[in-house]
Amino acid sequence: MTPDEFRRHGHELIDWIAGYVEGVERQRVSPDVRPGDVRAQLAEHPPAEPEAWSVVMADVERVVVPGIVHWQHPSYFAYFPSNTTYPSILGELLATGLGVQGMSWVTSPACTEIETLMLDWMGELLDLPERFHSTSPTGGGVIQGSASEATLVAILSARWRATGGAVNADGDTSRLVAYATSQSHSSVEKGLRIAGIGSDRLQIVAHDDSFAMRVDDLRRLVADDRAAGLVPCFVCSSHGTTSSMAFDPTPQLGPFCRDEGLWLHVDAAMSGIAALAPEHRWVNDGLELADSYCTNPHKWMGVNFDCDLYWTADRAALLGALSILPEYLRSAAAQTGAAIDYRDWQVPLGRRFRSLKLWFVLRLDGVVPIRAMIRRHVELTQRLAAEVRADERFEIVAPHPLNLLCLRLVAGDPATDALIEQANATGEVLFTRTVLDGRSALRFSIGTRATAWRHVAAAWQLLGSLASSS
Amino acid sequence: MTPDEFRRHGHELIDWIAGYVEGVERQRVSPDVRPGDVRAQLAEHPPAEPEAWSVVMADVERVVVPGIVHWQHPSYFAYFPSNTTYPSILGELLATGLGVQGMSWVTSPACTEIETLMLDWMGELLDLPERFHSTSPTGGGVIQGSASEATLVAILSARWRATGGAVNADGDTSRLVAYATSQSHSSVEKGLRIAGIGSDRLQIVAHDDSFAMRVDDLRRLVADDRAAGLVPCFVCSSHGTTSSMAFDPTPQLGPFCRDEGLWLHVDAAMSGIAALAPEHRWVNDGLELADSYCTNPHKWMGVNFDCDLYWTADRAALLGALSILPEYLRSAAAQTGAAIDYRDWQVPLGRRFRSLKLWFVLRLDGVVPIRAMIRRHVELTQRLAAEVRADERFEIVAPHPLNLLCLRLVAGDPATDALIEQANATGEVLFTRTVLDGRSALRFSIGTRATAWRHVAAAWQLLGSLASSS
Repeated sequence: MTPDEFRRHGHELIDWIAGYVEGVERQRVSPDVRPGDVRAQLAEHPPAEPEAWSVVMADVERVVVPGIVHWQHPSYFAYFPSNTTYPSILGELLATGLGVQGMSWVTSPACTEIETLMLDWMGELLDLPERFHSTSPTGGGVIQGSASEATLVAILSARWRATGGAVNADGDTSRLVAYATSQSHSSVEKGLRIAGIGSDRLQIVAHDDSFAMRVDDLRRLVADDRAAGLVPCFVCSSHGTTSSMAFDPTPQLGPFCRDEGLWLHVDAAMSGIAALAPEHRWVNDGLELADSYCTNPHKWMGVNFDCDLYWTADRAALLGALSILPEYLRSAAAQTGAAIDYRDWQVPLGRRFRSLKLWFVLRLDGVVPIRAMIRRHVELTQRLAAEVRADERFEIVAPHPLNLLCLRLVAGDPATDALIEQANATGEVLFTRTVLDGRSALRFSIGTRATAWRHVAAAWQLLGSLASSS
Repeated sequence: MTPDEFRRHGHELIDWIAGYVEGVERQRVSPDVRPGDVRAQLAEHPPAEPEAWSVVMADVERVVVPGIVHWQHPSYFAYFPSNTTYPSILGELLATGLGVQGMSWVTSPACTEIETLMLDWMGELLDLPERFHSTSPTGGGVIQGSASEATLVAILSARWRATGGAVNADGDTSRLVAYATSQSHSSVEKGLRIAGIGSDRLQIVAHDDSFAMRVDDLRRLVADDRAAGLVPCFVCSSHGTTSSMAFDPTPQLGPFCRDEGLWLHVDAAMSGIAALAPEHRWVNDGLELADSYCTNPHKWMGVNFDCDLYWTADRAALLGALSILPEYLRSAAAQTGAAIDYRDWQVPLGRRFRSLKLWFVLRLDGVVPIRAMIRRHVELTQRLAAEVRADERFEIVAPHPLNLLCLRLVAGDPATDALIEQANATGEVLFTRTVLDGRSALRFSIGTRATAWRHVAAAWQLLGSLASSS
């Protein structure tokens, strides 16, 4: 492709994307395809000759668009929000065009320094504790690809600190124990597996009626484990669980974990961004004693995936766990300690210039429209909750302080499961099912940038009519 | 940003990128900045009001461009190739604009199925063994973010197989041992650390004069470890080491690892793409007995970072190691086994639509220009080697079958180190230093899309004149 062709097709693609985003409501939310359908429409073998732009874009319209879930659709209520914004798309485009590697400061200084600055900006906008700021004595932040990687990195830091660093060499994890509720994200168990601690050493702490961790049960488990000669080392506190958006009691967990020497990781992947609006800043409660914290601009802030913000108050543990320095990566800047080498803050070595999209969003749109979006989503959720409460066929099954409402049919699990399946099959909406305390629930997650009351109301009407006809 | 502003600024940015790529040769290769210089030029706090596009782009030109290493510069000879192409940039842009999540088949079927197809296309183009094809009884491929993640995933698969899966629950890695040479990538040690095996259990196998693994030494170490009651489980064979592009003897390692039940991972991150040219297909030698293999289109193929291709011949071990299925991720498609859920093939949960950029490159440009680029880089390297051999001040210190030449001054390490430092300080070129058998070497890596003989010759002339004046 020549530079001129790139200019022409690039302009066409920009226009195509604007058209896609503005017109996404005309699509089915989820595709009507079975496994294999997409592939069957495409060439089994690579082309022998280059193909025309128009041919490829025709396949995008014919195969790709009808083959994806439209996460940007205003009637998308599934999984979690993953909204994009125009400045974010352009920030990612710039990063792609520059094509630099940010594994070390020296491999592209601006890539590292703008990232550090963005973490500090976000810490200010979210009103996070000073201990996470890059200029604090022991803290700092980094962009991870996902909250799963943030969880893993927190586990590795905890493991390092609990063994005085010995685990790096001897791999001895045999006495370590971690704690979370059954509502914590699957990445906790996956991370413990990866870290060689093992899922048997994930103690499931009991939760209360609101699906929040019971501190008394944590205390009991930790005491029992110590009595058994084990080494408790890690607690994951969720600020907004995936299933029901429950909040674990970090203000009570902080002093306990500090006194017991446990690493306290707070996973606010889905909900932490709410703190951009001052009235929702309670989502930060207790962070002043957390060892690490993460939240995802790629979920509820319009910064496209991947952009997970991870802060730690103990960067020595993080670097201890992950720093490796072969000859071909040495640099004077790193050896003086003046520069951050983010490769030592993450699992992979290579890294993209991901901070550009955050920089673009915060400068070109600013936080005002993001705050407005968050407030609108919360209001829509509360308005929906009022409607659900007024309908005696349904019940709300968990607290809903923000933008997720979990509900079910009082008729029971088969009816709830059928309702979700029938609603999704229309293609007009998309919901995810979960199980709360052994019973099915429909998750109604309101987080797409374009979602307005009419979309929520139509979805609720659909649920109501399906419930009547079943 | 409104849709119309997005269209306008998007067009401007596309043009800006074309101008950047075409004009990158006018930049210094590496920036003249010290730690903190970039940040000092930017606002310490987020803006209170949205800023104009022109203001932000002015900062891109004033601060970002002079603050990065220009990895696309034709006189960039450092680290590894990381070249981009126009179709790849547009493929990434499309993925960003669609904003979908590919963690499971059901979360966007086309995202999964095009990825599987691209792995099969690439297997065909690289002429890889059938056992890695998605329709083979036990194999398949996936895009990882980086070769480091590929290495980690291979280690986790090996660990799972060696323990019959028990490690997932009990975390017992206490008897496991892994093997690699001192020349293998740092991600092997990092991966063993992360996996809780520990760096003490990385046995460093001796290498020969060409920096390739000595199979006799591997045999000896494995026998000794077995005699000591340990469980050898993983061998990393590098096809193109980072320091000198050495190739370990996979044809000999394969039968040994098969007979001993060791997981054989072949790391061809930097050099495996050479197999797109039939005359370089020797880089695949021995893959027919490998358990896993990776190579990076984001290095030498013009597909921008991140795009690491990882194939395994034992997907049961991979899924065994990484599959976790909470209620909110269940789907009928996955439960029947008809669909691939790529979240179970990687460390993170979330994933971008990364196959689009590969699809765009293979359809819009095709492999012909990539093959031509690879051939040109190899020819330039051999032509350079002839010049170096003719200069008695220099010596070549490792085999150079492809596009990396390691050289040093016969005057010794301080002279070689000074040469690298002085050359890089000019801003006209960028080299990386390494250490081979205890002595400094300059890595002359030829892999940028725009690099022609005149760039290589100018760099060589610069080295010669600096060597004379010192």
